[in-house]
Amino acid sequence: MSEIDFEGWTCPAPIRPTDKVILGHGSGGTLSRDLLNRLFLPELGKAAPRALDDSAVVVMDGQRYALTTDSHVVSPLFFPGGDIGRLAICGTVNDLAMVGATPVALTCGFVLEEGLSFEVLQRVVKSMEESAREAAIYIAAGDTKVVGKGGADKLFINTSGIGKIADGVNISGANAKEGDVVIVSGTIGDHGITVLSARENLGFETMLESDVAPLNHLVELMISAGEVHVLRDPTRGGLATSLVEISEQSNVMIEINEESLPMKLSVKAACEVLGFDPMYVANEGKLVAFVREDDANRILDVMKKTKYGEDAAVIGKVIGNGKSQVRLRTAIGGTRLVDMLPGEMLPRIC
Amino acid sequence: MSEIDFEGWTCPAPIRPTDKVILGHGSGGTLSRDLLNRLFLPELGKAAPRALDDSAVVVMDGQRYALTTDSHVVSPLFFPGGDIGRLAICGTVNDLAMVGATPVALTCGFVLEEGLSFEVLQRVVKSMEESAREAAIYIAAGDTKVVGKGGADKLFINTSGIGKIADGVNISGANAKEGDVVIVSGTIGDHGITVLSARENLGFETMLESDVAPLNHLVELMISAGEVHVLRDPTRGGLATSLVEISEQSNVMIEINEESLPMKLSVKAACEVLGFDPMYVANEGKLVAFVREDDANRILDVMKKTKYGEDAAVIGKVIGNGKSQVRLRTAIGGTRLVDMLPGEMLPRIC
Repeated sequence: MSEIDFEGWTCPAPIRPTDKVILGHGSGGTLSRDLLNRLFLPELGKAAPRALDDSAVVVMDGQRYALTTDSHVVSPLFFPGGDIGRLAICGTVNDLAMVGATPVALTCGFVLEEGLSFEVLQRVVKSMEESAREAAIYIAAGDTKVVGKGGADKLFINTSGIGKIADGVNISGANAKEGDVVIVSGTIGDHGITVLSARENLGFETMLESDVAPLNHLVELMISAGEVHVLRDPTRGGLATSLVEISEQSNVMIEINEESLPMKLSVKAACEVLGFDPMYVANEGKLVAFVREDDANRILDVMKKTKYGEDAAVIGKVIGNGKSQVRLRTAIGGTRLVDMLPGEMLPRIC
Repeated sequence: MSEIDFEGWTCPAPIRPTDKVILGHGSGGTLSRDLLNRLFLPELGKAAPRALDDSAVVVMDGQRYALTTDSHVVSPLFFPGGDIGRLAICGTVNDLAMVGATPVALTCGFVLEEGLSFEVLQRVVKSMEESAREAAIYIAAGDTKVVGKGGADKLFINTSGIGKIADGVNISGANAKEGDVVIVSGTIGDHGITVLSARENLGFETMLESDVAPLNHLVELMISAGEVHVLRDPTRGGLATSLVEISEQSNVMIEINEESLPMKLSVKAACEVLGFDPMYVANEGKLVAFVREDDANRILDVMKKTKYGEDAAVIGKVIGNGKSQVRLRTAIGGTRLVDMLPGEMLPRIC
């Protein structure tokens, strides 16, 4: 057993580095990255270099396939606009779509807490079926484990999926190029704020709704309309964290115009009251795309004609390379640097 | 929302049918089957008929692939002979191998409880890497979620895997034929009794060891030595439940000789003291095979030359078809019918 070297881990608070898992390690931000780079990858990453995209690419019989996995622990199980079942299907479908893959099949692993009512489980399963039908993905296999009361919080669902990547499609966080136009497919922050509000009974939930949705059909249209270099669904850590990841993978400078960010008034209001920056709040039915400048208008047009892309907007541009940086041009004309989510703002939102 | 019809559900005790999840729904026995047939499959099984083997078979580009998923919630995390990490890798590798697939890649989804020590997590991850290396499977993707203290019991791991099924290989629980010889790859009951003893500090754990191991290399040798019709790893519900499932899938009568069942003396002794029937105790490094009569000796010979098959033995035969039944010929010459595990004997053993 090798010693864990605590030097240089991200400190969750102004105290010494922790030797225990804290909520922030599940945030999708810098603490999550620490855990990945310092504990998981040194062991599990031995086999191959990692692309660190939403799905891994595996070649079998000369054909490229995308593989992905996600565990879902959202609390509460039901929230305005969705539930853990829809989230589990859409999360995995979207991870496949973000490398340009057409989803083929997925598996579901349930961990149930003793005492969960069949009625709740049936509602969740029904919702999974409806979402899978909408995404046209096939649920191929499943597994159920039950733990004693108090051993888990009601219901966790893992969904793992496989998708096929067509010849000529080459989409990765590492493919952003100078000049690329940055598009977001709709309003940001809807999911995270809705779940938080529903969980804590903050009273905003009556005017909020999660955006959880499968984006694979939207992605297919985008790919056929023009050259798409990068796709990512800004879930945990929000849009800001996704942009920073992409700037690092591609080693490019990205400039975002704050005023261009589509946002619902209700989300904006809730974020202001609660003190959240919507750029760090999770989305579950949105994507950010980096596309070839000449194709941007054509791609935006096809997006706007779809249900899940009608509020799509150009939000920025890749302004240089050789350096990874995300700059936000603010409404009052200033510029500030954007960093990853450092710790955990909203636990258990997916 | 359709009403759940409670008519005909297996009753966990002599009371009215439950409308809540109980531990027995995770047993792998009749209560698990109820949950599958009455709640999951009516929704999630709409897309396709189910084979109910350890892995699902999906055809992509004319090639058959096996897909499988398993969540692991074993308690304690470490036990003599293994740990949750080795269990998670081997469980999925074995499910792929049981349809004759060569494992290609797997994904890992972690649910961590806040406060879990990095040292524990690192030991588990290291064990996963070692087991994956032994099985020659590639860990392609991962995901980590963290829930608050009390929201989960330390650490759950989902592993989902994909494997390739070679042309000509056709292995399924539905393929048992009259005359087939039934082989088990080694001693039964080791895993379940070891975990129970370690969890409850029963004192047997010093002389017991889990059998958790990847069986894919063994399966490859078996397939090249003769005609294999059925493979199954008798995990939850034990050997008895696997045999009943196979008898139902193939609609055949199976006769097992009690005296032929390989069993460690320590497991036998522990089962006697605790009142368990070893045929219902989980294994994690064993398989049961139904093979063509003429090939049985050749297959048994190659098995016995391997580390995980050295105690392999012929335990019975398919004695008829047109009726699903499992008969046990006891040591004193009697015969009794074998049924599935009805409820839950040993929760959280995998």
